Amino acid sequence: MNPPPGFAPRPEPPYYAVIFTSQRTAGDAGYGDAAQRMAELASQQPGYLGIESTRGADGLGITVSYWRTLDDIAAWRRHLEHTAARNDGRAQWYTHYELRIAKVERAYGWDRNAPA
Amino acid sequence: MNPPPGFAPRPEPPYYAVIFTSQRTAGDAGYGDAAQRMAELASQQPGYLGIESTRGADGLGITVSYWRTLDDIAAWRRHLEHTAARNDGRAQWYTHYELRIAKVERAYGWDRNAPA
Repeated sequence: MNPPPGFAPRPEPPYYAVIFTSQRTAGDAGYGDAAQRMAELASQQPGYLGIESTRGADGLGITVSYWRTLDDIAAWRRHLEHTAARNDGRAQWYTHYELRIAKVERAYGWDRNAPA
Repeated sequence: MNPPPGFAPRPEPPYYAVIFTSQRTAGDAGYGDAAQRMAELASQQPGYLGIESTRGADGLGITVSYWRTLDDIAAWRRHLEHTAARNDGRAQWYTHYELRIAKVERAYGWDRNAPA
């Protein structure tokens, strides 16, 4: 089954997750366009497996991107346009963030229309 | 530095993350109270390290809870009240969810007031 919109696919573990939790500053300041561009650009990188992202009305957001290997994550981290966006993020968009790199060991899902 | 509200602490890796991504049904149906109770109950379990949770206006939510060991996660999974809430979740609150268990290998953070 393909996952519904907003969910990443469910490849066979192991693979890697980058958990990015962030608190936004007030106002857009180019954030919306940049976030969309970064999601698009990430999806074109080697080893990209999917992304899940949401942000509440309080400005706290969690984005989890999934990758085949740690090297894929390191390469995306070094990407020039991503590096520039990261600098903009620190200068303008975020008051605080935490980033965790984790190896997915188990994964499962559930769907109302296919409760298994 | 203690993390701001909404962020989990940053213990020394390795530790474990449970990444729960979910799409809510319309309406509350007891969800708000139950979610608050589960977060409170989780925080009292052995090995609990912290939680980060957010949900967008489209009903897509991501909750990441952090735990010391896989055994701690398994014990929380078996907790009777948690099991009951999971059943309610399938019956009423979610249309789809994905759950991933991942070993956090690296973690860092950034704060506007301590950019370091």
